[in-house]
Amino acid sequence: MPHQKRQISLGLFLFASGHHVAGWRHPGAQADATFNLGFMAEMARKAEAACFDMVFLADNNCIQQDDWIAVRRMARPNIFEPIALLSALSMATQRIGLVATGSTTYSEPYHIARSFGTLDHLSGGRAGWNIVTTSNSLEAWNFGRESHPAHADRYKRAAEFVEVTKGLWDSFEDDAFVQNKESGVYFDASKLHILNHKGEHFACRGPLNLGRPPQGHPVLVQAGGSDAGRDLAARTAEVIFAVNQALPDAQAFYADVKARMTAYGRDAASVKVMPGFFPVVGRTRAEAEDKMAGLQKLLHPDVGLSLLSFLTGGFDLSGHDVDGPLPDLPDTDVGKARMKVISDLAKRENLTIRQLYERIAVSRGHHMVVGSVTEVADRMQEWFEGGAADGFNVMPPTFPEGLDAFTGLVVPELQRRGLFRTEYTGTTLREHLGLPRPAHVARGQIAIPA
Amino acid sequence: MPHQKRQISLGLFLFASGHHVAGWRHPGAQADATFNLGFMAEMARKAEAACFDMVFLADNNCIQQDDWIAVRRMARPNIFEPIALLSALSMATQRIGLVATGSTTYSEPYHIARSFGTLDHLSGGRAGWNIVTTSNSLEAWNFGRESHPAHADRYKRAAEFVEVTKGLWDSFEDDAFVQNKESGVYFDASKLHILNHKGEHFACRGPLNLGRPPQGHPVLVQAGGSDAGRDLAARTAEVIFAVNQALPDAQAFYADVKARMTAYGRDAASVKVMPGFFPVVGRTRAEAEDKMAGLQKLLHPDVGLSLLSFLTGGFDLSGHDVDGPLPDLPDTDVGKARMKVISDLAKRENLTIRQLYERIAVSRGHHMVVGSVTEVADRMQEWFEGGAADGFNVMPPTFPEGLDAFTGLVVPELQRRGLFRTEYTGTTLREHLGLPRPAHVARGQIAIPA
Repeated sequence: MPHQKRQISLGLFLFASGHHVAGWRHPGAQADATFNLGFMAEMARKAEAACFDMVFLADNNCIQQDDWIAVRRMARPNIFEPIALLSALSMATQRIGLVATGSTTYSEPYHIARSFGTLDHLSGGRAGWNIVTTSNSLEAWNFGRESHPAHADRYKRAAEFVEVTKGLWDSFEDDAFVQNKESGVYFDASKLHILNHKGEHFACRGPLNLGRPPQGHPVLVQAGGSDAGRDLAARTAEVIFAVNQALPDAQAFYADVKARMTAYGRDAASVKVMPGFFPVVGRTRAEAEDKMAGLQKLLHPDVGLSLLSFLTGGFDLSGHDVDGPLPDLPDTDVGKARMKVISDLAKRENLTIRQLYERIAVSRGHHMVVGSVTEVADRMQEWFEGGAADGFNVMPPTFPEGLDAFTGLVVPELQRRGLFRTEYTGTTLREHLGLPRPAHVARGQIAIPA
Repeated sequence: MPHQKRQISLGLFLFASGHHVAGWRHPGAQADATFNLGFMAEMARKAEAACFDMVFLADNNCIQQDDWIAVRRMARPNIFEPIALLSALSMATQRIGLVATGSTTYSEPYHIARSFGTLDHLSGGRAGWNIVTTSNSLEAWNFGRESHPAHADRYKRAAEFVEVTKGLWDSFEDDAFVQNKESGVYFDASKLHILNHKGEHFACRGPLNLGRPPQGHPVLVQAGGSDAGRDLAARTAEVIFAVNQALPDAQAFYADVKARMTAYGRDAASVKVMPGFFPVVGRTRAEAEDKMAGLQKLLHPDVGLSLLSFLTGGFDLSGHDVDGPLPDLPDTDVGKARMKVISDLAKRENLTIRQLYERIAVSRGHHMVVGSVTEVADRMQEWFEGGAADGFNVMPPTFPEGLDAFTGLVVPELQRRGLFRTEYTGTTLREHLGLPRPAHVARGQIAIPA
């Protein structure tokens, strides 16, 4: 068998009417995208036609900001519950992976194990779970809490949460369901494992009322970039959605998480690091810059300031001169990693607050490229071959136009260079990503010995 | 306009490979039904072709029984998470309503409001929420609790839970999302309402991150038959899934809940009482009895005893002579109403334990008819016209055969009698049921005055 060349993994980050915060106002954007299932299904099918590994959905159990003067100008308050949405999208697609975000702080392992396990069954093995601890106090207030738990506590809970969830997915062995009409035995009780988990944060007896998912476990995704987040990723993640602005930062992050994995005894090749990637693509650089300028014109100052304040941990910038420098930010407990990325960028390039929000509001701290097809493809290749990325979570500025530009122009160029697949070779998300299927692990006690 | 004759409402209770506990073993049953999305979609489409009002899904966050010697013989441990499943089924159907069960004891109003609201959006206004307080201690152990909360406490929590959920669905007014590209205003903040609920069981600030559902609120369904359950139903429900064995009991229940509604100032016609209905249909009564005998032969004694014990509140019958009478049952806190139905049946007909489980295990306490097409239709008409039912939640003994018999034989007979629709006249579940769309109620404070 010929040696399989390492190739880029691609996710489509489906979000609002596009990732540019004012993108919904653009003539090339579908303003009602978040309400429009038919439109979202069309976007998923476009990504599938381009052989993307997965569709990715962020999630929150709140409207993320509450300065309504600004928020009323954003296309973001309507967010369909992601498991329901991906279950519907699974019926409109055949092969593409389906990854949703689920909070370990505001959910329970039994619920997460059921819903993501069900999505894996419904989709024939295409589900992934993006594990987040949630970085928003507004969410706490929707669940009877006075404040959001501290960063360290959230990550301790998350680590135990993931272990319980994996244990629940292994309630039944793969071949437990014999369904023998003649003998009348529906499942072999010697292949049913009762978890009986009793830990610091959770007590969960099990078993899960669900057969083992087709992929064994849905693919585990992690996005936290803080020390605790990297540690959790190194212990559990199979895909990491990083947030990095510049190549050296991305290389350092990449090397760090792979080293942490090795320290935990895991194969560093068994995790895919996929930074967020915000491409503004033109046939020429000038065309791309025109597109970007057109989008920036739609950005209202209320929105820019609000989003910058949100991304810097809720720090209120309204008293500061927008044409002056970013003040020193206080230490924070939420979104630590992203806040540092933003603060570093402002210092490195000596940006005013206005310049900073014009840069950041757009891609929310993720890496952005404005350029020709060649320039965008070059940047992806540079990161991919330069030890900074195994793939990218693609964040088009608008839907459908920004996605069409990427799939129509950049994907063929990546394929021409042999950097991206031209057809699916597998049917599950694990197969797309080249990840092994986890073997069943017997935990707890067997219901009845054979 | 001609006077619209009152017609029967029909739900299809989609459950395992059929409602007969041994039905999965029957040659006419699809043994892997709970794993088989394509098969479940086919059942939903059959019900839709027959103009049913809704598909209904029960739910539990546990395997309901844990005497594995018996449970391994039942087709019930694999239960897809119902919102995910109905979201997928919404893509395979056009008109039929989609009702799932959601627990007020083991979930949060924000999660329930989002997931059922999302299903309503995805399906174009076809969602319903069956409100249950859960009657199974095994569920408590999966959520870190040592025991299941007491009956009265569960119902108090449920009443507040429903109010919070309705408030969250009204976070946005129907026409809040203006999506005006030119002005840059995505939603009108004067039509955003922040609930700020602070009650005995819940504190929930809101707003929900979801536009108002197409139906205003998904249809509210309630199944509890106890005093507290009837009270909750009378205050909140639009559909009641009753459990009644005999006509006089059903008439008394029907009169009682309608009277309670009137006492709460509600229109008694605005709720549909739909008892569970287990039909074994033949072209002749002899054929139906043969079918039933064929099913009963497949019932293993381990299963019968286990299910009877479960349905009588967990009372262990293993020490009693199966050919002797049912002992007096102790007072219980779970499934009160159903336990009384079963106990009354045993006394009324002087049944042995074996005779009782042969009767009960089959339909789980619901009303059963074994008869010819005419007999089954007569019984439905008798209940419908006799003040016992506005419709039925149909529980075929097997899928697909039992459903095919009902849709192929009984539905045409009901239609011939003018008791059931021959085509849909509306597109939403509320329209099928003839229920009004709830007007938006302003609660809490407005985000920003206009």
